[in-house]
Amino acid sequence: MPALTTDLFLHDLAASLPVDARVVDRERMRVFECDALSAYQQLPLAVVLPADEAQLLHTLALCRQYRVPVVARGAGTGLSGGALPVAGGVLLSLSRMNRLLELDPLARTARLQPGVRNLAISEAAAPHGLYYAPDPSSQIACSIGGNVAENAGGVHCLKYGLTVHNLLALRVVTMEGEVLSLGGTAPDAPGLDLLPLLTGSEGLLGFITEVTVRLLPKPPLARVIMAAFPTVDRAADAVAQLIASGLIPAAVEMMDRATVQAVTPLVGPIYPTDAAAVLLVEADGSEAEVAGDIERMQRVLQERGASQLTVSDSEAERLQLWAGRKAAFPAAARLAPDYYCMDGSIPRQQLGRILQEIEALSAEFGLPCINVFHAGDGNLHPLILFDANAPGQFERTEAFGARILEACVALGGAITGEHGVGVEKIQSMCVQFSRAELSSFHQLKQAFDPQGLLNPGKAIPELHRCAEHGRLHVHGGQLPFPDLPRF
Amino acid sequence: MPALTTDLFLHDLAASLPVDARVVDRERMRVFECDALSAYQQLPLAVVLPADEAQLLHTLALCRQYRVPVVARGAGTGLSGGALPVAGGVLLSLSRMNRLLELDPLARTARLQPGVRNLAISEAAAPHGLYYAPDPSSQIACSIGGNVAENAGGVHCLKYGLTVHNLLALRVVTMEGEVLSLGGTAPDAPGLDLLPLLTGSEGLLGFITEVTVRLLPKPPLARVIMAAFPTVDRAADAVAQLIASGLIPAAVEMMDRATVQAVTPLVGPIYPTDAAAVLLVEADGSEAEVAGDIERMQRVLQERGASQLTVSDSEAERLQLWAGRKAAFPAAARLAPDYYCMDGSIPRQQLGRILQEIEALSAEFGLPCINVFHAGDGNLHPLILFDANAPGQFERTEAFGARILEACVALGGAITGEHGVGVEKIQSMCVQFSRAELSSFHQLKQAFDPQGLLNPGKAIPELHRCAEHGRLHVHGGQLPFPDLPRF
Repeated sequence: MPALTTDLFLHDLAASLPVDARVVDRERMRVFECDALSAYQQLPLAVVLPADEAQLLHTLALCRQYRVPVVARGAGTGLSGGALPVAGGVLLSLSRMNRLLELDPLARTARLQPGVRNLAISEAAAPHGLYYAPDPSSQIACSIGGNVAENAGGVHCLKYGLTVHNLLALRVVTMEGEVLSLGGTAPDAPGLDLLPLLTGSEGLLGFITEVTVRLLPKPPLARVIMAAFPTVDRAADAVAQLIASGLIPAAVEMMDRATVQAVTPLVGPIYPTDAAAVLLVEADGSEAEVAGDIERMQRVLQERGASQLTVSDSEAERLQLWAGRKAAFPAAARLAPDYYCMDGSIPRQQLGRILQEIEALSAEFGLPCINVFHAGDGNLHPLILFDANAPGQFERTEAFGARILEACVALGGAITGEHGVGVEKIQSMCVQFSRAELSSFHQLKQAFDPQGLLNPGKAIPELHRCAEHGRLHVHGGQLPFPDLPRF
Repeated sequence: MPALTTDLFLHDLAASLPVDARVVDRERMRVFECDALSAYQQLPLAVVLPADEAQLLHTLALCRQYRVPVVARGAGTGLSGGALPVAGGVLLSLSRMNRLLELDPLARTARLQPGVRNLAISEAAAPHGLYYAPDPSSQIACSIGGNVAENAGGVHCLKYGLTVHNLLALRVVTMEGEVLSLGGTAPDAPGLDLLPLLTGSEGLLGFITEVTVRLLPKPPLARVIMAAFPTVDRAADAVAQLIASGLIPAAVEMMDRATVQAVTPLVGPIYPTDAAAVLLVEADGSEAEVAGDIERMQRVLQERGASQLTVSDSEAERLQLWAGRKAAFPAAARLAPDYYCMDGSIPRQQLGRILQEIEALSAEFGLPCINVFHAGDGNLHPLILFDANAPGQFERTEAFGARILEACVALGGAITGEHGVGVEKIQSMCVQFSRAELSSFHQLKQAFDPQGLLNPGKAIPELHRCAEHGRLHVHGGQLPFPDLPRF
């Protein structure tokens, strides 16, 4: 944009929005220059913090008029750079639209503005014995609007689903300034189902201005089993058998030997450090349900070769067994100056195989890696350890991460489990999707945002970028592992 | 299309497809001239029955070349005319692509061609103790491809979800001839989530050529409670309390007095004929779970004023209690020469209110109506009784039905619960959606089908048609019931 036009745009913005709804001062904008993927930083042209939908619509009209790109931001806790500002664009923070509009304990629903924090929903619902199930690890800070944009998950999404499974309705403002009501209480809404399309669309299709979520009754009891295994394959096999047996655990987490050894100095000897893998398997529900589930879970874990089993007998013991898992990220931070948390997914039965791959890649790139998995739904979080100050190490780490994702795709999985694509994994999208699939994404994007002003350069790569990077589409194409069943 | 072009198209079709893949004889095409909404009938130009994806792609290429519209058809059991042929178009039946491609009992998934019958999936899974949960009442005949196109539900979708909640992946061919792989095993797939967009899109966006479904372990036990209530309001209140209490019944069905009285001559005195409403509430799971649920359900039903309660003590008793509900449609057929099964949805707490509305409309139109509800998810099936041979009665029935749907929307519900829009409810879409929402549907449709050849005239009305019919958009607009909470 020519400097004069920029000035005119900023002038119009200043003239028409209250002073608390805009930030143009460079120093005050610093806090918005990245999200939780802090390796990427960019100052926007201006930050707008609308107090309501009217101010949002007004800002979008100005942006359309001057063709200024817009990036939406929730609480800025995203891990893939989805809320990274665009140079010369507006960063639109929805943090001031943070009112809980309605809580209906009988219908078990809550209607919220996008800036309401995830945990605040459960806090407000607690007096009614209810809670909001999706629990991303950032739940103290992250906002429901951001959760919808990224389709956030959490440790318990195996049983209770992702954000999309806990939504009833959305109110959405498009870049063109249209207001859409999506979803509702009908079991199967008429028309095209735009609610799941918008959910997880990473800010590419519209702005979420209202969210109606389903609340669940708080399970009266939860107990966890810690199971140690002599080999990773046996642990992976046990996970597959747990699911195949028809049990739906509240959570199934897996840590590899390196993770167990890393957390032990922090939390004490909770887990056997000689085990190749440790599982945490949780059951929740009524006392009778939990007792029945725990018994069946123990049987499966034993049959599949668990070398040690501990079951929590109190809430204190349960939290104690979880303490090591929760310490995995701080522990990684002690092992090296920096760590990079990757996020990919694989079919459950490939858990052992992907760990072998990661081990081989770790040797190839000369960088250590510890592994924490949401094993129940095949979502892995390899933590690559590196030193950002050592020349070339960050680039090597990124390359290592990209290779892990390619291995995930080759094994029938995906380049993200729950963190989204953002800027971080945009090149890996070329590996995941065919030209036809990427084209269909672009066509949909254009239907919602014909000028292409909304979060440009994120989540969906341009086709020519895939060609330039020479990335190989392997899903449904030629597989590096020809012996595997095809999905 | 000029006659000469039609001849050329038919010539090319005949020259390039095997004889068993095409029907052009008028008499042999009769069976395809309607789906289960038999009030609408139309002969197509030709019927194509591809044996595989290659024949499908070839047919689509010819249709694009000659600009011939195409309508997809599964088993033809749809109730809203979604598979009604278009004059001068191709009716494309996927019934010959009916192979079960893969059944993985460990991963609990099945990969199917679109023509596989719904019930055949559960039959194939039964030896592994597994089944496919969605159970539309046409499940003996309907196909999984049609289930996906309509996002089919069933009596048990309250607990187990609609088709979309039981899908893992789709393979889709667009009208443009592109092949897309949607979904997968990742908890949150990257890219825009096209799987739920395609599901329930009523044949407007593409052809489903492969479906991967989730299988569930067959619950070892099911028991049902029959509860009679002296007023509809009390029954409705009991349903709301059941759900609010955190119970997730396998099914909650409701019959009004007229339905109970209609079925009694067919199945005997199963239900008290003096009750204003009868509920069937089912629990399934392990013996301990079912015992606990049944006890809690009974307590809620009693607290909410049930005048009579019967609990099944054996599978024979359970089937006996269901027999009356299953006989509702045959019973309606005995009460009048014809009946019209409507399908709408409302928030659960409005069950009493909608029944009052339907009663008033029944008087206004001079047509009797009996009511069967999937009460747990607020999905109603009013059966309007009429005589198609009496002049004007079918038109009056359609007008009555449209008014019921408008009342559903005004009460915060929707014009369809599970049957789809098709041709049947296309005008009611003008009541459900705003201009902006309908526009967004058209833009999406165009992104997938730029020539507009796929199932034209169905499911999404042209904006000018809404204007012509003078229908009022009430959802989010002006409500006939100003005292109601707004959704």
